[in-house]
Amino acid sequence: MPLTEFELIERYFRDCGAARSDVIAGIGDDAALVAVPPDTELVVATDTLVAGVHFPPGSPAASIGHRALAVNLSDLAAMGARAAWALLALTIPRAEEAWLAEFAAGLAALARAHGVALVGGDTTRGPLTVTVQLLGTVPPGAALRRCGGRAGDALFVSGTPGDAAAGLALEERRLAAEPLALAYLRERFLRPTPRMALGERLRGHASACIDVSDGLLGDAGKLAQASQTGVEISFAAVPVSEPLVRAVGEEQARTLALTGGDDYELLFAVHPEKVSAMLAELPPQRWGYTRIGALRAAPGAEVLREGTVMQFSHSGYQHFT
Amino acid sequence: MPLTEFELIERYFRDCGAARSDVIAGIGDDAALVAVPPDTELVVATDTLVAGVHFPPGSPAASIGHRALAVNLSDLAAMGARAAWALLALTIPRAEEAWLAEFAAGLAALARAHGVALVGGDTTRGPLTVTVQLLGTVPPGAALRRCGGRAGDALFVSGTPGDAAAGLALEERRLAAEPLALAYLRERFLRPTPRMALGERLRGHASACIDVSDGLLGDAGKLAQASQTGVEISFAAVPVSEPLVRAVGEEQARTLALTGGDDYELLFAVHPEKVSAMLAELPPQRWGYTRIGALRAAPGAEVLREGTVMQFSHSGYQHFT
Repeated sequence: MPLTEFELIERYFRDCGAARSDVIAGIGDDAALVAVPPDTELVVATDTLVAGVHFPPGSPAASIGHRALAVNLSDLAAMGARAAWALLALTIPRAEEAWLAEFAAGLAALARAHGVALVGGDTTRGPLTVTVQLLGTVPPGAALRRCGGRAGDALFVSGTPGDAAAGLALEERRLAAEPLALAYLRERFLRPTPRMALGERLRGHASACIDVSDGLLGDAGKLAQASQTGVEISFAAVPVSEPLVRAVGEEQARTLALTGGDDYELLFAVHPEKVSAMLAELPPQRWGYTRIGALRAAPGAEVLREGTVMQFSHSGYQHFT
Repeated sequence: MPLTEFELIERYFRDCGAARSDVIAGIGDDAALVAVPPDTELVVATDTLVAGVHFPPGSPAASIGHRALAVNLSDLAAMGARAAWALLALTIPRAEEAWLAEFAAGLAALARAHGVALVGGDTTRGPLTVTVQLLGTVPPGAALRRCGGRAGDALFVSGTPGDAAAGLALEERRLAAEPLALAYLRERFLRPTPRMALGERLRGHASACIDVSDGLLGDAGKLAQASQTGVEISFAAVPVSEPLVRAVGEEQARTLALTGGDDYELLFAVHPEKVSAMLAELPPQRWGYTRIGALRAAPGAEVLREGTVMQFSHSGYQHFT
């Protein structure tokens, strides 16, 4: 017998995520009720994953659940916020119990890891589409923004971008790799790691921050534009993982790192006078970030190699062009 | 030349909705930042409209924009909350400027009418799906819940349910009606009125409240179940509009009122000792609500006509059965 919407929610989503004492009413009423801590600002993000657009049809359900939350967590990390409550708007063609159980498990594991309670949502029938809304908090005035950078600020990126784009290409069999590299790169696409702890620690250090989701070069351009500056990136400085280099070679690895999507790393600018304090307080080898360039006065986003400007056919993912 | 996602958001959604001084950062960063008033609880809802499921394909874009916000406003009304900030997750097959302009106008008009700022969202390519997330506030402990009803409480409903279900049937040409009735009923489907002012005024009066969206009888059953009671509704007392009676006759009008969907009215229980104060403070003829029955100790939801229990083939809309 097919599940009713009520049964589906009770079975898979009632206890999905962390238990939090500030949830006054979670799933089961017309809306959720939560107590926002005093002396905080509320940070709110929403991101949608569409089957066939943001993940291949037939993607593992646990990965879809993980990624739907991860892409929103990453937006909060980029604001320097701490995540607290999530809502899930899930559109599915039919209620398949095995799929739902895996999806919920993937979402729940990441939610619990970051103390996020699932407090509400909506379940509807239709083409597979997952929208998560995530709420979090930040001390007043402390949020990281895209717009705070100034010419001369040093530019850093966390992790090793490009891995997820290669993982997706492997997942879609557009690329082949040896088993170890394949496993690592696929995992970076299927279960990206939002940089929550780094985002919070960057408050007071970074002048501007953005989530790298549509390609490092394009997102660097967005940060620069919001800050009314330009940006220069050193091709040789772009960090790439060993598995990525083994899979596609060093040249292609750096190109993928600059133009591939789905990284969910943090790209941040730091005023020159604040760089040494940050490096001391957040040792790069422990926190996993790399200096890759600087903001500049002249507008535009350029990648330099041995003094010459490189050309790329595109700078990142575009939905409508 | 097709619009980029950035241009699309700038052109249609940047100034969509009310301007609010408590929005610290709206559209344009990784997440929105808002200041929640002290001494309030945060109320959060999300609802999705899927093309072909929640509205006919080819529905007017302005109506889709209006309804996507209205269904969420109605959820906040049912909690007795005041709406403040919305996020929009819009999935569209392609960026059609005329459609987007109408959609945004429909959303913006309702948002401004209720003081709601659009502070963020996500625009993705895929099958037409609209998810709105709505945030609002309520004084601590004052939220209306589904679970507060007791046996003996009087049951009231706002407006004239059934109109929207008839409007949808007219829209889909499953029903015909004379021009005046047709225009009225279609409007009730295309542009439902969330009962925001009534919801806020019911705080302190109602013991329990629910948004009537999936059918009055079914939603009454949900309120009763959450309150650990049953419910009896008097068939003769169910309010129906004159246009609905003209379109389908009185018997069918009441049946539609009990089992049709998309009403976005409020159904609320009131303790017997509080009824007269409510009737005095909120005159029913001005606030547009009607007593239709009562909560009872025995479980279940029944409709009584001249002392006998009526049978319906279904009690409301179900997504997955």
